[in-house]
Amino acid sequence: MNLHILNGPNLNLLGRREPDVYGSQSFDAYFEQLQQQFSQHQLHYFQSNHEGALIDKLHEWGFSSGGIILNAGGYTHTSVALADAVSAISSPVVEVHISRVHAREAFRHHSYLSPVCAGSITGLGLSGYALAIHYLVDYHSR
Amino acid sequence: MNLHILNGPNLNLLGRREPDVYGSQSFDAYFEQLQQQFSQHQLHYFQSNHEGALIDKLHEWGFSSGGIILNAGGYTHTSVALADAVSAISSPVVEVHISRVHAREAFRHHSYLSPVCAGSITGLGLSGYALAIHYLVDYHSR
Amino acid sequence: MNLHILNGPNLNLLGRREPDVYGSQSFDAYFEQLQQQFSQHQLHYFQSNHEGALIDKLHEWGFSSGGIILNAGGYTHTSVALADAVSAISSPVVEVHISRVHAREAFRHHSYLSPVCAGSITGLGLSGYALAIHYLVDYHSR
Amino acid sequence: MNLHILNGPNLNLLGRREPDVYGSQSFDAYFEQLQQQFSQHQLHYFQSNHEGALIDKLHEWGFSSGGIILNAGGYTHTSVALADAVSAISSPVVEVHISRVHAREAFRHHSYLSPVCAGSITGLGLSGYALAIHYLVDYHSR
Amino acid sequence: MNLHILNGPNLNLLGRREPDVYGSQSFDAYFEQLQQQFSQHQLHYFQSNHEGALIDKLHEWGFSSGGIILNAGGYTHTSVALADAVSAISSPVVEVHISRVHAREAFRHHSYLSPVCAGSITGLGLSGYALAIHYLVDYHSR
Amino acid sequence: MNLHILNGPNLNLLGRREPDVYGSQSFDAYFEQLQQQFSQHQLHYFQSNHEGALIDKLHEWGFSSGGIILNAGGYTHTSVALADAVSAISSPVVEVHISRVHAREAFRHHSYLSPVCAGSITGLGLSGYALAIHYLVDYHSR
Amino acid sequence: MNLHILNGPNLNLLGRREPDVYGSQSFDAYFEQLQQQFSQHQLHYFQSNHEGALIDKLHEWGFSSGGIILNAGGYTHTSVALADAVSAISSPVVEVHISRVHAREAFRHHSYLSPVCAGSITGLGLSGYALAIHYLVDYHSR
Amino acid sequence: MNLHILNGPNLNLLGRREPDVYGSQSFDAYFEQLQQQFSQHQLHYFQSNHEGALIDKLHEWGFSSGGIILNAGGYTHTSVALADAVSAISSPVVEVHISRVHAREAFRHHSYLSPVCAGSITGLGLSGYALAIHYLVDYHSR
Amino acid sequence: MNLHILNGPNLNLLGRREPDVYGSQSFDAYFEQLQQQFSQHQLHYFQSNHEGALIDKLHEWGFSSGGIILNAGGYTHTSVALADAVSAISSPVVEVHISRVHAREAFRHHSYLSPVCAGSITGLGLSGYALAIHYLVDYHSR
Amino acid sequence: MNLHILNGPNLNLLGRREPDVYGSQSFDAYFEQLQQQFSQHQLHYFQSNHEGALIDKLHEWGFSSGGIILNAGGYTHTSVALADAVSAISSPVVEVHISRVHAREAFRHHSYLSPVCAGSITGLGLSGYALAIHYLVDYHSR
Amino acid sequence: MNLHILNGPNLNLLGRREPDVYGSQSFDAYFEQLQQQFSQHQLHYFQSNHEGALIDKLHEWGFSSGGIILNAGGYTHTSVALADAVSAISSPVVEVHISRVHAREAFRHHSYLSPVCAGSITGLGLSGYALAIHYLVDYHSR
Amino acid sequence: MNLHILNGPNLNLLGRREPDVYGSQSFDAYFEQLQQQFSQHQLHYFQSNHEGALIDKLHEWGFSSGGIILNAGGYTHTSVALADAVSAISSPVVEVHISRVHAREAFRHHSYLSPVCAGSITGLGLSGYALAIHYLVDYHSR
Repeated sequence: MNLHILNGPNLNLLGRREPDVYGSQSFDAYFEQLQQQFSQHQLHYFQSNHEGALIDKLHEWGFSSGGIILNAGGYTHTSVALADAVSAISSPVVEVHISRVHAREAFRHHSYLSPVCAGSITGLGLSGYALAIHYLVDYHSR
Repeated sequence: MNLHILNGPNLNLLGRREPDVYGSQSFDAYFEQLQQQFSQHQLHYFQSNHEGALIDKLHEWGFSSGGIILNAGGYTHTSVALADAVSAISSPVVEVHISRVHAREAFRHHSYLSPVCAGSITGLGLSGYALAIHYLVDYHSR
Repeated sequence: MNLHILNGPNLNLLGRREPDVYGSQSFDAYFEQLQQQFSQHQLHYFQSNHEGALIDKLHEWGFSSGGIILNAGGYTHTSVALADAVSAISSPVVEVHISRVHAREAFRHHSYLSPVCAGSITGLGLSGYALAIHYLVDYHSR
Repeated sequence: MNLHILNGPNLNLLGRREPDVYGSQSFDAYFEQLQQQFSQHQLHYFQSNHEGALIDKLHEWGFSSGGIILNAGGYTHTSVALADAVSAISSPVVEVHISRVHAREAFRHHSYLSPVCAGSITGLGLSGYALAIHYLVDYHSR
Repeated sequence: MNLHILNGPNLNLLGRREPDVYGSQSFDAYFEQLQQQFSQHQLHYFQSNHEGALIDKLHEWGFSSGGIILNAGGYTHTSVALADAVSAISSPVVEVHISRVHAREAFRHHSYLSPVCAGSITGLGLSGYALAIHYLVDYHSR
Repeated sequence: MNLHILNGPNLNLLGRREPDVYGSQSFDAYFEQLQQQFSQHQLHYFQSNHEGALIDKLHEWGFSSGGIILNAGGYTHTSVALADAVSAISSPVVEVHISRVHAREAFRHHSYLSPVCAGSITGLGLSGYALAIHYLVDYHSR
Repeated sequence: MNLHILNGPNLNLLGRREPDVYGSQSFDAYFEQLQQQFSQHQLHYFQSNHEGALIDKLHEWGFSSGGIILNAGGYTHTSVALADAVSAISSPVVEVHISRVHAREAFRHHSYLSPVCAGSITGLGLSGYALAIHYLVDYHSR
Repeated sequence: MNLHILNGPNLNLLGRREPDVYGSQSFDAYFEQLQQQFSQHQLHYFQSNHEGALIDKLHEWGFSSGGIILNAGGYTHTSVALADAVSAISSPVVEVHISRVHAREAFRHHSYLSPVCAGSITGLGLSGYALAIHYLVDYHSR
Repeated sequence: MNLHILNGPNLNLLGRREPDVYGSQSFDAYFEQLQQQFSQHQLHYFQSNHEGALIDKLHEWGFSSGGIILNAGGYTHTSVALADAVSAISSPVVEVHISRVHAREAFRHHSYLSPVCAGSITGLGLSGYALAIHYLVDYHSR
Repeated sequence: MNLHILNGPNLNLLGRREPDVYGSQSFDAYFEQLQQQFSQHQLHYFQSNHEGALIDKLHEWGFSSGGIILNAGGYTHTSVALADAVSAISSPVVEVHISRVHAREAFRHHSYLSPVCAGSITGLGLSGYALAIHYLVDYHSR
Repeated sequence: MNLHILNGPNLNLLGRREPDVYGSQSFDAYFEQLQQQFSQHQLHYFQSNHEGALIDKLHEWGFSSGGIILNAGGYTHTSVALADAVSAISSPVVEVHISRVHAREAFRHHSYLSPVCAGSITGLGLSGYALAIHYLVDYHSR
Repeated sequence: MNLHILNGPNLNLLGRREPDVYGSQSFDAYFEQLQQQFSQHQLHYFQSNHEGALIDKLHEWGFSSGGIILNAGGYTHTSVALADAVSAISSPVVEVHISRVHAREAFRHHSYLSPVCAGSITGLGLSGYALAIHYLVDYHSR
């Protein structure tokens, strides 16, 4: 099965940016781990700081992917366009946040994506990505 | 007269995305119809999922176009930058929405564009584009 | 086809009231123009300052008209009863506003009618009525 | 490792209550599955419709459990006392919701528990419980 | 010292766009003046209408620059992603607005950037950029 | 005893308007039933779409009626003037709504009339009128 | 000089309705007093419970009256249409309220009329009408 | 037919607590009256100050009762869990309030129960219970 | 009779400050006029920019004055302490505003003083002071 | 005199739970101290995590106690039912909070109990209980 | 020990002003009682209606006082400057209110002082001052 | 040129008050530095904790000063009267804040002064005063 991970703005700085909030591991390193852990699946990964590029990618992947794991970073809280893209495609999308967004600033408590994603995993660190893959694999095996 | 249509995020999926809300015709097919219907005018069309690309296009067209028809999709509700671009140019801009945005989620009821556009046409389906051209042609013939 | 225009409070003063906002043409003069422009259709026109009279008229027209063009003036922003009347009838209703209501006071930004009308045309001056007729004629010819 | 599942009001009706929202499997049946899936751990389960009983249980378990999985049902949105109990104990607590609470009524969008739990899993159905156990097992194996 | 100026959407139209609000000088002309005034420093300048491009630039400059002067235009009021980028980097960032944003529309009164920038200078016209450089030079000479 | 029923806007369409919300019986038919059921009392009935006409009627009836049953339709949510009329008269007024207004749009959740009426019966269909008469008859027999 | 007094809903009950709030004198009796006090002027008086009738009257009087004294009762707080009528006419309009509306329910604290009237006199009982006439006479004698 | 009355917190003090708001009759005395009045039906009554006990009772009764009359007292305004229980069961539930809750503090104007109950009767004193029984009996006889 | 006028902050600049809003006459000049117009009464006048000084003056005057005319300027909208002083004294206080405060910024629409003063006169220019004296003289002659 | 202390949810963990917020002394230890300090009075103490149990206790004590000291913990901010119980009883109730609730999360700033209790003591640590007893003893000795 | 009492606006009228809210004893009389009751301490007292004078006094006392008891009257609800002064000094400050501010107007429910004071005592009448002294004496004896 | 610095409440404690927020230098020491740095100009300085004294000073200076630098401390967020004074005078006023007010409590995010000042400099420490002088000198040399 082809599964896709889509990371939004500033997640390219993971490991380098505010390590007390986001941990000190880079996403590339983590992604390699994930590929080993789920070696029977094809995992794909794309990151962009551009809202439009994330939408383009959802359109490209969203009609054939086995599932998309979306961490839209700051766009989570402001992008109707991204939420519309999630609604427009047919692949299931799982929203992931590394940090406990509900324990941070009030503007991080609202997500335009939560109502249109299949589900959300927040605050469980990088493990959130692995759990989402577990879910998607299960989802298809039912 | 040169007239320009500018479509924002997810409108490239028209005909494919939620057909019960947006209809089943692709915009390209509709655009050909429009060109035939208004064959005495030069119609131009651009779509992007990138907010910045839409702003760039408004800057490029906005000092010489006979009129711009703007359906900014999800950016309608979140983009001060796009509204500032509309304010900054001199060509008249007509806002169009295919669906009845006021009958949908609350966050779709507010448009940053409405106060800076010449006018707005919402909920009349793809016909909204044709009506906007009618208006712009009339506007210049007065 | 029988088409009906229903104007609400203060629109009888058109041409006389705040001409910089609403233009200097009376609605009667404009209505004659409209009748000539759409001479193949039966156009009817009623204006009242009474909310109840507007509701009565919607009930009278609303089960047989080819379409109703409704500019409810100030009642747009305050009348649940009028919106209920629009919902209760079967003819399509198009909401028209002459001025750019979204560029005026905040209380004019909300319309009880928008969610229950077929669509809305705002800010395009008196042309809004003609565009609405275009739409209704098209609608029936499809 | 001892792991505990704490279910709040109305979750005793699972499988019987609104099956289109919550699925048709009873929690007892699901719990047996979970015990088989994680047979190397001691899983415990308690359900109550009483807010005070849930708090009592958190106090009882919360200083020795390997992790608590809490689905507080309707109390999620209204109980400061329950959130205070989560803060007061030392075992990690993972919040789970079966349905996509953010796609339902507005009062379900706010959780007093999210800011004080280790993390949250919502909308992924009964799988959410299994994913939470995965997380807790991982958490302790690091 | 290397200092960087980052301008956001519509600021490429400076001198051409609403001169009563923003003045009639282009930013390029002003930048030359600035370079002469601060000839002992290396000044760099980038403008984009793309939110993502601004974030990319902050990432590129933000770990080595002596200071960044950021006028994010309309994104100031809507971009959590941009504010996250400012938080993620280590160079000091000074927010500048040419116009008195607090005397304009209500949606311009809130800035996502103010809480994460070193400080803000608003309403003092193009001089704001020069004052910010003064500050950054002072900051490093202490 | 003389008892009065006062129905507001759009209730003349009962049986014809949105039958899934309001049922398929006309009010005239129901009123005949009521007269038979309470044949020992004088029942009177008036309907108008005019807010002012409803106020006039309350003034006319409100100092001698044994009780008034008021379903003000859409004016319930918007009319301070009608609420003032209820306060100004001496006969007891019972508010009735046929549909479950609290399960509909948010603007239907607030009633200007509830705080000034003797009581309210909502969501119990046309039976609400009969229950209100029961109450008024009881009220006078105590 | 011709001066006009326009009273809105429920003011016909003055003297009879809640005398502790509105006093025990009927408006007719008071109007006679006013005519004697200002016998050198032509005073006219109209009352209606119909919003539309009040608008009609403003249109009829509003282009030739020396001044209109408007107590719109409950419509003060809810009628955009009435406020639009005040804006549309050329005679000066003074808003009067008998009771201290700001010491009553919160919904009485806002007036759509205050921003469009020449001025407002509230809480000074029936004297408010006499003071308004004083003002209008002065206004014309300047 | 079996009909059930469920009273919430503080209603055990009826007749003793704030008699000007709630009357001076105890509920036990009133319940005897009700049993005599509706002697052809089986009436059951339960009161608790415990939110959880009310939910338990709804679960116990709610799949076989001919109808439940629920006065949830203060929980009306705060309990999502109780509202969820009403939604989860199949028997019709009628909400009753003795006092005119909409004429009291603002926090009493909102009910979590109204949107999920069959209907609501408020402000008609203890008679509300009798009217609700009338309704339920009628409901089953249709 | 002794009557007192109390003017708050910035009213010492009258005639000099924003003459298009407040007129070009100084208050001293106007006060002399008032003294002539009401020569049978003792008029007293005090102005201060100090909130505390205004409160001190209300305490000094407020148990023996025939009436106080209070224009609290900007403190109108922010001073609970001043409103408490008005409540604490026994002389009647009439609130006056020269400009139409309700047609200006939103923060000027709320007055802490209106609910505790005998009444308010706003927007009628300096005449407001004379009208207030008329009222107070009348009030005592009744 | 009999005096009663009623502690709500999580206060059984005092001394064990977040000692930097609530101190490190258990309530039992403190209660013994209190009994010694006020040995001439009968002090009683009850704690429960159950909202209903707290209400039951208020009913039991509230018609004969010399005074009740109530620290309702998290229920302070959410329980209308508890506030209704305080209103329903005749003994004076003093609200106590150990921590400075107004310096913590916003949802802790509102208390349903403050408006119905005799008074409130917050932020003074365990001393608040002793001060409340001082007050109640004084209250009865007057 | 030196202890200081600081009373704000209108508290000089105590005993004279609204005795049903504030009691009929003057503060001077009460202060003498306090001095007798706590004769082993030096009590100081200052009252002013001037916000600035209260701030000056806090600065003067606030670095050497054993404790300050502050009843800021109306400034409690509006003064950031006074709260900043409390934060700026090192002596502990206890907030006292004589009346039950939370049972009065909504604007009295918020205090800028509560989050920066050591604690608050409200609604316990003049006893609040004595209780605060008890607390401060205890505080220093620990 | 004469330039004036006006500091509001608590700024007299600079260097002594919360040094982590405001730095450890007294304003007097800083003012001497400023006088040396701008020795070709006449710098004047006044500080008061009294809102009225600040307004008096603005009136005194505001018609002849070359520019006023205003740090109104806590009055920034609460004083309409001070903002009115800034509007009323003719000298340019620059608002300065030492700390990053937008990163502190929510009530510090709003300034009544920003919309009426020439511009604002916030968060740049004491340097903000020097930058403001730079701006004013430049402003006059243009």
